[in-house]
Amino acid sequence: MSPTLTILGCGSALPTRQHFPSSQIVEMRDKQYMIDCGEGTQIRMRQMGLKVARLGHIFISHLHGDHVFGLIGLISSFGMLNRTADLHIHAAPDLEKMLQPQLDFFCEGLPFNVIFHHINPRAHELVHEDRSVEVYSIPLKHRVPSCGFLFREKARDRHIRRDMIDFYNIPTWRIPKIKQGENFEMPDGEIIPNERLTTMPEKPKSYAYCSDTAYSEKIIPIIEGVDCLYHEATFMQNEAVRAKSTMHSTAAQAATIALKANVGKLIIGHYSARYNHKNGLLNEALAVFEKTIAAEDMSVYEI
Amino acid sequence: MSPTLTILGCGSALPTRQHFPSSQIVEMRDKQYMIDCGEGTQIRMRQMGLKVARLGHIFISHLHGDHVFGLIGLISSFGMLNRTADLHIHAAPDLEKMLQPQLDFFCEGLPFNVIFHHINPRAHELVHEDRSVEVYSIPLKHRVPSCGFLFREKARDRHIRRDMIDFYNIPTWRIPKIKQGENFEMPDGEIIPNERLTTMPEKPKSYAYCSDTAYSEKIIPIIEGVDCLYHEATFMQNEAVRAKSTMHSTAAQAATIALKANVGKLIIGHYSARYNHKNGLLNEALAVFEKTIAAEDMSVYEI
Repeated sequence: MSPTLTILGCGSALPTRQHFPSSQIVEMRDKQYMIDCGEGTQIRMRQMGLKVARLGHIFISHLHGDHVFGLIGLISSFGMLNRTADLHIHAAPDLEKMLQPQLDFFCEGLPFNVIFHHINPRAHELVHEDRSVEVYSIPLKHRVPSCGFLFREKARDRHIRRDMIDFYNIPTWRIPKIKQGENFEMPDGEIIPNERLTTMPEKPKSYAYCSDTAYSEKIIPIIEGVDCLYHEATFMQNEAVRAKSTMHSTAAQAATIALKANVGKLIIGHYSARYNHKNGLLNEALAVFEKTIAAEDMSVYEI
Repeated sequence: MSPTLTILGCGSALPTRQHFPSSQIVEMRDKQYMIDCGEGTQIRMRQMGLKVARLGHIFISHLHGDHVFGLIGLISSFGMLNRTADLHIHAAPDLEKMLQPQLDFFCEGLPFNVIFHHINPRAHELVHEDRSVEVYSIPLKHRVPSCGFLFREKARDRHIRRDMIDFYNIPTWRIPKIKQGENFEMPDGEIIPNERLTTMPEKPKSYAYCSDTAYSEKIIPIIEGVDCLYHEATFMQNEAVRAKSTMHSTAAQAATIALKANVGKLIIGHYSARYNHKNGLLNEALAVFEKTIAAEDMSVYEI
């Protein structure tokens, strides 16, 4: 299955009728990864009927309220739903200082562990790795230390051909190795080359989340060629001065980054509450980079 | 205008598609008072297009997350919207301990004061008074110290008759006193009795909020005869054992309290997430007390 991005909230600091604050879930292979957790994240999950049993890691871009105020409610509800799996939170160190006293007070006897991993938002480095995915931080340019996240899917196994399994009578225990590229030796010693047994796997996908940030070309070498880029587009061009002073981006700037980084597609979000609809933002981005989509809350996008 | 109750959220701990956690706004005369502030309260306000310029006081029943997790986001957004008026929060002392560090970290430079007033949830006492309203705490029976709130509107001014103002040529500056019951002296010394100039004001209204609580007849003398009672009804009767062990009420218990306290009407809420619709809860309450309404998020009720 192709990786997906589920947008729970793509508004900015002030929630609106349409948009909750920032939160999204990256689904890659068999796992779910949350990025940011604004107020109402758990409500959006409920509204979507989303199951998050495979969510083990939450990545927090920066410590502004619209990216973290949903954490305590989410964790508290996980407790009531009897989650037992560890929950890992990757964030700047101050988050633990703010959240731990709340966990101690409001979530006594939580049936799972909340494990904080301190990240340095100023560094571009590997912050998490498992058998499917590598996650790197992307230093951004904002009023407080802020970093995006780059998700790189690891190489997938080759697809084994069902008809070849039958034809050569391949035992089940040999299949994992063949998927990884091994040849198959018949009982009579004949070697069946792997290329006859398998087909190419899908190319590993990559996704970059860049919010909140002013326009910054420094991120381009890091996100170069990703399949999908989510870049904040808080303002339209006529608010470019305000974008600069508040260290946010315009839609056209997001698209310029997408263009220069040669990404597969761009998803814009983090819309200012001043916009009643996103057409203006989308059109300004499309004028620069045509493979642009405007995010919508409770929507799922292929990465 | 008759006082109103705006339900922002009437769910219980776990939010559902229909119901956000607890929060409501009592509007009495020219003021708004919030009771409880679960996650998403500010979102509901936005969704309703609610203006809260006359909101100065928030009353917190108890320190469970579903009654307080929305405070930090609400206050943070008030700051971004350049609120300048003081915001008073009435709650058990631990709330200040939990919230102040978050305010210091996330809401630096807030353009208004957040003033905490410590209340003792175990006492029935006056917790707030202004020229329109008196607010009393109502000790409840829950797993943590919890209190409801009784709002008593003060006596209103009499209505002055427009035709009498014209007939007797009453100068504007005399009107406030006449509304308060004074007679009017004509230039020639003739006394016009107040009853000829004014009509009776509306009877002051009263409202009681009782959530979260197990069934407790101790509250009856306090809420006796209120115009409107909001009482939690987390469970249906077949979950009465669970209601008791978690210190919540069933719908029938809420209605029994309403009946015994001879209230004008009952609004039930704080529904468990297990119920997909509230008909069962409402029917069980109606069987005991017929003037029952089942609360709905984003609805406004006359008190």
